[in-house]
Amino acid sequence: MSQGIEKLKKIMVNANTDAVLISSVSNIIYLTGYSGFSNTEREAYLLITKTQQYIITDGRYSEAVLLHIPHFELIERTIKNTLDDIFKKLIKKHHIKKLGLEEDNLSVSEFKQIKKHYNNTYHYSLTAMRSVKDNDEIARIEKACDLGDKTFDYILKKIKKGVSEKEIAFEIEFFIKKNGADLSFPTIVAFGKNSAIPHHQSGNDILNNNQFVLLDFGVKLNNYCSDMTRTIFFGKPTEKQKKIYQVVLESQKRAIDFLNTKYKILNTKTKSLKASDVDNAARDYIIEQNYPTIPHSLGHGIGIEVHEFPNISPNSKDILKEGMVFSIEPGIYIPGFVGVRIEDLVVLEKQDPRLLTKSRKTLIELT
Amino acid sequence: MSQGIEKLKKIMVNANTDAVLISSVSNIIYLTGYSGFSNTEREAYLLITKTQQYIITDGRYSEAVLLHIPHFELIERTIKNTLDDIFKKLIKKHHIKKLGLEEDNLSVSEFKQIKKHYNNTYHYSLTAMRSVKDNDEIARIEKACDLGDKTFDYILKKIKKGVSEKEIAFEIEFFIKKNGADLSFPTIVAFGKNSAIPHHQSGNDILNNNQFVLLDFGVKLNNYCSDMTRTIFFGKPTEKQKKIYQVVLESQKRAIDFLNTKYKILNTKTKSLKASDVDNAARDYIIEQNYPTIPHSLGHGIGIEVHEFPNISPNSKDILKEGMVFSIEPGIYIPGFVGVRIEDLVVLEKQDPRLLTKSRKTLIELT
Repeated sequence: MSQGIEKLKKIMVNANTDAVLISSVSNIIYLTGYSGFSNTEREAYLLITKTQQYIITDGRYSEAVLLHIPHFELIERTIKNTLDDIFKKLIKKHHIKKLGLEEDNLSVSEFKQIKKHYNNTYHYSLTAMRSVKDNDEIARIEKACDLGDKTFDYILKKIKKGVSEKEIAFEIEFFIKKNGADLSFPTIVAFGKNSAIPHHQSGNDILNNNQFVLLDFGVKLNNYCSDMTRTIFFGKPTEKQKKIYQVVLESQKRAIDFLNTKYKILNTKTKSLKASDVDNAARDYIIEQNYPTIPHSLGHGIGIEVHEFPNISPNSKDILKEGMVFSIEPGIYIPGFVGVRIEDLVVLEKQDPRLLTKSRKTLIELT
Repeated sequence: MSQGIEKLKKIMVNANTDAVLISSVSNIIYLTGYSGFSNTEREAYLLITKTQQYIITDGRYSEAVLLHIPHFELIERTIKNTLDDIFKKLIKKHHIKKLGLEEDNLSVSEFKQIKKHYNNTYHYSLTAMRSVKDNDEIARIEKACDLGDKTFDYILKKIKKGVSEKEIAFEIEFFIKKNGADLSFPTIVAFGKNSAIPHHQSGNDILNNNQFVLLDFGVKLNNYCSDMTRTIFFGKPTEKQKKIYQVVLESQKRAIDFLNTKYKILNTKTKSLKASDVDNAARDYIIEQNYPTIPHSLGHGIGIEVHEFPNISPNSKDILKEGMVFSIEPGIYIPGFVGVRIEDLVVLEKQDPRLLTKSRKTLIELT
């Protein structure tokens, strides 16, 4: 488990907040380490006061909560002890005047219910806090990346003429699960012109000679995600295809070099640089080379969720700091023809940025 | 795709609603048939007016939307064409005065943004509409159930001394995916006393002689879910264990018999009966036999989501009608000792209720 709960309480004291209601599953995982709740149904809330921490859930989870989250006080929500009743009691007990809520997660219906009783609520976000990872979190992401690299080695052997995108996606999933992990998102496998669709859904298309194979997949291990993309060539690439690959690779290198150089010369205590500058370092090169601009952000933070802060894009206001982990993933997409994307994760450590993805990046040609 | 969009428009005309904003992924699947959007991030909205239907998403999905949802007009959300801009234009164009929203899905932040411009919004739900399935939807659920039954046959051969819960769960997933489908929820495999935890997370416990094995899993095929539970015995059950199994089985039989008898004698045109009465038929028998009451609902509707309306529980106000598909899943749980649950899906058809789960229910004893 991360040191999230201690960090949160410190921030609450400084901000003079009486209590925070946590509803998003990713924040519940962050603060408790328990990942058993559904991502699609509301099954639990946390209420954190300066002195106490509660988990509110129903009878299905009581045994699991007592076993896995003993440092939280369990409150069972029942037909006779409704959410309304529970909140009323807690607000009274802890003299809560100002209540922080996750307005980007709480539904309008839930909000209206809470507003019946307490008017003094405001938006409270753990986003900034979660974007800076502690050593345990970084170690978990690194382990997920290691398994990602192993998966890439494994899948190279499975790429053969006649396989379908879905079969390759399934083999990736199979390998990851056999190794005790999960997918961090649905695997993207795109052959040939499908690689020009950044979020292609792996389908029944069959691999033919002389096609790019784009593989974008992630591992979730101990609640933390990895994310990597490699584009390889099946057959013999033309000069035009090679050129596109080289430009994407060089564009990624420029972003990483920029990060390395800039980060090193910053004052060690206040190290911080603009996310948008890193994006530009990669994007400008692609445009210079007369290819269309990257139709997505250069990168995104990652952790318990596959997309977290910071956002590495031209309009991002985010500032990169020590402890952040994010992707660098430039791409060139030419509709109806080809797409190439290369994606690694990087962590900003005390001294240097460090790549967490280790798989080879020179163009692999399979036959 | 379901006939949802036609149904919705008919209801809108009758209710004098100008437009409905759809944000939940399950409703987007229901109305468009397209399932490519993330379940955990907001990537698309639908705006349905009486005459037109729009899908609002970003550039990552444009190609997919044009290909798979040609009957919706695509509006691309960009940095220069924000959600605010888009809504303003559409509201003006269609003279929208009254806007329906999914208040149980829309976040407080999104709601506040919309409220800046249009005050006349109200909660709009597709829940009731979706609880009644058309023939195509029933056929999809039936196919998912068929694969569920095949999965059960397959997994029986894998249950051997020394396997772990996680291994069995993985084998179930493996078989379902190899058959081109997905899980509808994380598989529950519980050995021995773990079966007493209704929502047990499959773990590293190893199968030993003389234990119950509870298997609760579902298939998602063509966007529709199945859900089934079987509890089998590994070794030789004691009389006490056999008795518990028989009581659960008989309790399920009583609910199904009640449904059959009642449904048949109802007027064919207005067929409807109380969900709570079906729950009671099963629950009362378990209590009569001196076992603890079922600590959950007897059943739940199912479709695109694994939990939909109706809710079959003692306090449910839901009315069962032709076209509904739901589970009947009584259970007895004795903490630290055993748990038994048996779950089938049933559909209410014109003449009769019909079971969609076909797997054997007499106690299977494996050695």
